[in-house]
Amino acid sequence: MKVDGTHYRSIWREGDSMTVAVIDQTVLPHEFRTRRLQHLDDAVSAIRDMVVRGAPLIGATAAYGLCLALDRERSDAAIAAASEALFQARPTAVNLAWALAEMSAALLPLPEAERLDAAWARADAIAEDDVETCAAIGRHGQDFIAEAWRAKGESGRVEILTHCNAGWLATVDWGTALAPIYRAHDAGIPVHVWVDETRPRNQGASLTTWELKSHGVPHTLVVDNAGGHLMQAGHVDLCITGTDRTAANGDVCNKIGTYLKALAAHDNQVPFYVALPYSTIDWDLATGVGTVPIEERAAEEVTHFTGRDASGELVRVALAPEETPAANHAFDVTPARLVTALITERGTCPASTAGLADLYPERRGRT
Amino acid sequence: MKVDGTHYRSIWREGDSMTVAVIDQTVLPHEFRTRRLQHLDDAVSAIRDMVVRGAPLIGATAAYGLCLALDRERSDAAIAAASEALFQARPTAVNLAWALAEMSAALLPLPEAERLDAAWARADAIAEDDVETCAAIGRHGQDFIAEAWRAKGESGRVEILTHCNAGWLATVDWGTALAPIYRAHDAGIPVHVWVDETRPRNQGASLTTWELKSHGVPHTLVVDNAGGHLMQAGHVDLCITGTDRTAANGDVCNKIGTYLKALAAHDNQVPFYVALPYSTIDWDLATGVGTVPIEERAAEEVTHFTGRDASGELVRVALAPEETPAANHAFDVTPARLVTALITERGTCPASTAGLADLYPERRGRT
Repeated sequence: MKVDGTHYRSIWREGDSMTVAVIDQTVLPHEFRTRRLQHLDDAVSAIRDMVVRGAPLIGATAAYGLCLALDRERSDAAIAAASEALFQARPTAVNLAWALAEMSAALLPLPEAERLDAAWARADAIAEDDVETCAAIGRHGQDFIAEAWRAKGESGRVEILTHCNAGWLATVDWGTALAPIYRAHDAGIPVHVWVDETRPRNQGASLTTWELKSHGVPHTLVVDNAGGHLMQAGHVDLCITGTDRTAANGDVCNKIGTYLKALAAHDNQVPFYVALPYSTIDWDLATGVGTVPIEERAAEEVTHFTGRDASGELVRVALAPEETPAANHAFDVTPARLVTALITERGTCPASTAGLADLYPERRGRT
Repeated sequence: MKVDGTHYRSIWREGDSMTVAVIDQTVLPHEFRTRRLQHLDDAVSAIRDMVVRGAPLIGATAAYGLCLALDRERSDAAIAAASEALFQARPTAVNLAWALAEMSAALLPLPEAERLDAAWARADAIAEDDVETCAAIGRHGQDFIAEAWRAKGESGRVEILTHCNAGWLATVDWGTALAPIYRAHDAGIPVHVWVDETRPRNQGASLTTWELKSHGVPHTLVVDNAGGHLMQAGHVDLCITGTDRTAANGDVCNKIGTYLKALAAHDNQVPFYVALPYSTIDWDLATGVGTVPIEERAAEEVTHFTGRDASGELVRVALAPEETPAANHAFDVTPARLVTALITERGTCPASTAGLADLYPERRGRT
């Protein structure tokens, strides 16, 4: 999507085409800075330190990271070691494992001399595939927004609540949850987005607001606590979020707090949609509630906070008394019963085992 | 309760007894600073700027604020003008209007010469009454914690989630939601409190943690998004929150985000208790959902954040891109159907019109 009038993706090949560049998402929205990834370690740290985040972008970064590793050594052992290093950078992200498996499957059958070119080609294909996938999610999800617009008699604007950042910064382009919103906006449907701050890492406050502002989509930032009131008061027509991992029955593991919004949507008869590419579906996971291991991140993300001070410098400040113990569960699981529909690149379906199996018949019987 | 071994209340008369002192809650937990209120304007700004917060403490501060005004002028008009100034400082807080009405009722019948002494006496009585009220809430609420402890076979510890700060800093002493926790802890029941950060003003992260640490109650800070996961994973035995305004049917208007936690508690069969003094009950409000006007505060509370930097200075930082629009609804309404029981100074009751009417029979038929 656009940044100051220039079209960007969140990851691209640069210069000699043997280098990768990404947008440094840790300094957004205060600075727009790109970062070159030249070695495997650069890719590992970009994933680990959340310079890149969002399941699809993590997958693409891992694929390109493997290319950077192969630039030096192309043995089976080198591929395995690089894959392991990349996997350990963010073990919860199912796309990461998926992208690495795709790369290994493409490379291991080849003679070593052919592996480097094949790796770049496969990584490019993974990135392109993600762009096409997200564009398709946008087309299908747009139908729900158009439906809400018609239901309002095409007056006012369609009020949409989203949590975290499932926009183009989380993918290669378009995004997942935001793709339908960008498409509806571009198609002339007046939309307004309630953007959840998304504590503790504030991806909504810092990234979703930045994306929407850059693209010109009307939006309002709210704290994560606000969604229940907004829905109860009739200020939300529909919710759309992404998912980091989708169980075969439609349970969705997404950013911590998603479950609370789904509860509020259900309590107020507000449709709650979850947008996802096929790569986030974990077909081996029959159900998600109680079965997905929930990543725990550093307590400091809860007790401290980084922002821009009056002089424009990024400053880290403490909120809580010193040595306050904090817990930091990164995700929660929203039961499928609270999800109105899933929006995938193939179309939409009920959040259920049957719904997903109908969209992906080639998986039927394999799980 | 105790601060570094010394017993404090949140408001007290000081020096010549014609001055009031409060704890400056805007600089907690980073600094423990007291502030003297010598004139009406000091009381108005203390309420408006949230140097004091919490419904009961706001009421007591308003009562003492009227004493400070009467020190200069004691006419009916002066009482009316001072009452109006105090009321406008925080129009949502029902205790504020209640305390001012109590003061007027006590003072207006008296000759002007007797009004000043009577005002101080009445304000003292309001403060003492609040301490007794909260102590009684603590005794009654402790029973629910003891019950949870027995239900666990008296092993491990009772896990309690709370939102915002309904502790002694929000009242004159003891607190409302925290009073049962302090009493259970003092009685030797092992408790552990999950403290919601409570965006946007972070009263949980800054005040509840500070209170619990000062009193030695085990606790863990979490972001507001975490409660759903914690309850789904079985890490919460019960929730206790306060309320700023309670409708006659048991609907509770409390800090934004309370409703979301009540939904999660209901979805996971976790008891959700609301602790309240009688002064927060608005008998004229038959129901709360959709009827309570929700205070909207400054957008800056959402887009900016104040904390302690590495050198110990308080610094204000921005989170969102410049000029990001933000909405800041301060409260939400939790429907009575999600509240397991109300805990009042008279005992506990179902969150219903009948439940409250049984506890307060003198109100029966008057609403």
